[in-house]
Amino acid sequence: MNKPLIFITNDDGITSKGLRSLVEAAEEFGEVVIIAPDKPQSAMGHAITISNPLRLHPSIVFPNHKAFSCSGTPVDCVKLGIYEVMHRKPDILLSGINHGENTSSNVLYSGTMSAAVEGAMENIPSVGFSLKDFDSEADFSATIVVAKKIIKEVLSKKLPDHVCLNVNIPKGSIENIKGIKICKQAHAFWEDRFDKRDDQFGRPYYWLTGDFECQSNDEDSDLHAMDNGYVSVVPTHFDLTAYSAMETLKKWNL
Amino acid sequence: MNKPLIFITNDDGITSKGLRSLVEAAEEFGEVVIIAPDKPQSAMGHAITISNPLRLHPSIVFPNHKAFSCSGTPVDCVKLGIYEVMHRKPDILLSGINHGENTSSNVLYSGTMSAAVEGAMENIPSVGFSLKDFDSEADFSATIVVAKKIIKEVLSKKLPDHVCLNVNIPKGSIENIKGIKICKQAHAFWEDRFDKRDDQFGRPYYWLTGDFECQSNDEDSDLHAMDNGYVSVVPTHFDLTAYSAMETLKKWNL
Repeated sequence: MNKPLIFITNDDGITSKGLRSLVEAAEEFGEVVIIAPDKPQSAMGHAITISNPLRLHPSIVFPNHKAFSCSGTPVDCVKLGIYEVMHRKPDILLSGINHGENTSSNVLYSGTMSAAVEGAMENIPSVGFSLKDFDSEADFSATIVVAKKIIKEVLSKKLPDHVCLNVNIPKGSIENIKGIKICKQAHAFWEDRFDKRDDQFGRPYYWLTGDFECQSNDEDSDLHAMDNGYVSVVPTHFDLTAYSAMETLKKWNL
Repeated sequence: MNKPLIFITNDDGITSKGLRSLVEAAEEFGEVVIIAPDKPQSAMGHAITISNPLRLHPSIVFPNHKAFSCSGTPVDCVKLGIYEVMHRKPDILLSGINHGENTSSNVLYSGTMSAAVEGAMENIPSVGFSLKDFDSEADFSATIVVAKKIIKEVLSKKLPDHVCLNVNIPKGSIENIKGIKICKQAHAFWEDRFDKRDDQFGRPYYWLTGDFECQSNDEDSDLHAMDNGYVSVVPTHFDLTAYSAMETLKKWNL
């Protein structure tokens, strides 16, 4: 029997510490293949590259593994991996470990999670991992322990069809993590602001910034789990239908 | 009382025929403000621009309306519109009319629909419109009739909180459209392929291509409605939690 084929990608780019940490967590479980963006691709959501060609280069970043850098987005990496690089369907797809959390509605903006959602579309058991620490030198030691535990379970139990996992891990040491909670996506958003500046010619430009606003404090949400020292695991799919609104709309005069 | 404030954006860019058609459909209902990408941004999904500054330029494309082109993605346009351009919260946000359909899982890749989803995050009644015709000179006359009908209903009834509409319109004249159906997102995907070519130096590059595969033929799906000559309307939200998987996962050894 073949060893599990483990496809690893991320959105922070092939040289990021979070990616190296995920490879370190995964390599004991099977054959690892890495295809990751050649530059940071944070907040690229589910973007794909359709108006430009894509490049794929063998990478020396992981000398012990088959690894490629890709000129596209995280979802491009998943598509190229599955349709051009892999010799068979991967047994698991892992994305991350992201430098920064992807709880609540951030799942929509997140390249890390969009790669996992793309894996779910292909019906590959897929997991996105994110650490609540934006620092490029963040300490991933606790996330490696958590990731091993989750990878082991996913390889053994698989996942429901077309469902992936959104795993968020609090900052800090493994001793400070209280446990792992199965959660729903919190109802929370960015209150955006733009930092408007003038360039050297006096012409305005804008930097997107803002504050994160939690509009609910449901105890079963990912934000609540994280705020209380737990790892949050949200089963995530890609059916965006608001079923509860269908009956209301059927009464409209359309 | 103020006239309704109508925010219009798209992903095909500010000069596209689909955008002009949507403005034509909407302008009788209130004050129209247009903020659209300065170049095509198809398949950008929910991407936002965080590592580059954004530019916003007054546009002469719509001489009768306040209009701006933006250097960013469709979701960037929505954020800049709400937080920098509008003098009050828009009464409705309209995105499109997209050149090409956005049924089923295409909602994830679609810049058109991601703009509407961003509007739903802001709790603005939002609608994405797409025509099943990729041609840059597509005939939008039927979509204008459909859009007027839907805009009128949304302005009068509003929408459930944080729900937007994904409207897809078949190609052809209004006489050939059998009606409007409230639908769910079809379970259908792209079977991707890459067209691998060599550049002038013999180095490979890849174009993403593929075929669309419908894996279910549910009569209440958007694809089924469209295939049978109906306009499909899918109420769409951004809670990606796979609630049905939560109990399974709670039994795992995590």
